[in-house]
Amino acid sequence: MDWLDRVKWGDDGLVPAIAQDAESRRVLNLAWMNREALALTIETGLAHYWSRSRRQLWRKGEQSGHVQKVKSLRLDCDEDVDLMEVEQQGGIACHTGRQSCFYRRLENGKWIEVDSVIRDPREIYGK
Amino acid sequence: MDWLDRVKWGDDGLVPAIAQDAESRRVLNLAWMNREALALTIETGLAHYWSRSRRQLWRKGEQSGHVQKVKSLRLDCDEDVDLMEVEQQGGIACHTGRQSCFYRRLENGKWIEVDSVIRDPREIYGK
Repeated sequence: MDWLDRVKWGDDGLVPAIAQDAESRRVLNLAWMNREALALTIETGLAHYWSRSRRQLWRKGEQSGHVQKVKSLRLDCDEDVDLMEVEQQGGIACHTGRQSCFYRRLENGKWIEVDSVIRDPREIYGK
Repeated sequence: MDWLDRVKWGDDGLVPAIAQDAESRRVLNLAWMNREALALTIETGLAHYWSRSRRQLWRKGEQSGHVQKVKSLRLDCDEDVDLMEVEQQGGIACHTGRQSCFYRRLENGKWIEVDSVIRDPREIYGK
């Protein structure tokens, strides 16, 4: 499809994709998409990514139920980064049970965990 | 420095860095940082990146004056993505003269330019 051809995929066939909470406006996570993941995201309305470590396609929330409903999709000026506004199911985007994956802040030369765990990951994923 | 060692730099020595406007909460741009760029960002309080195309360090706004004052720096759960809250000088982050680099939105299978140009780039950069 034309709009998919417009994206400047990297040498590895991937682009970074940012998910931002449509309501709180917090940046929730950055993950990677290949052509198939982006196509499926638009087809289904649910964020799909490519896992570089597991080398497979995944639908965000497929295990946890914390899916991301995509409200809008944007492309940057260089056409090599996606930005999605999402409705985050369960209010939890991070596998640590936090709202956002960006829960560490630099304070006086140290990374401090500044956001609390909303739900114990053992509860989310089973033991 | 300890906090710089904590970052999981990619094989190319880089991590993606997201800049978000501290006030409007808009995601402004994604660019890349190496260790030196991140160290300089914290040292100076101004966002520095590594240009993959020009293969050089740059201070955002060095030509345009549209510097980014960094209010906070966060690291994600995988320790391989940075997120900055910034005060965007001039209200323009994009080299096209727009507030954000994410000015294209997918609508009915087409990328539509939905944000207007605030200042003509020829005026920003000279002819």
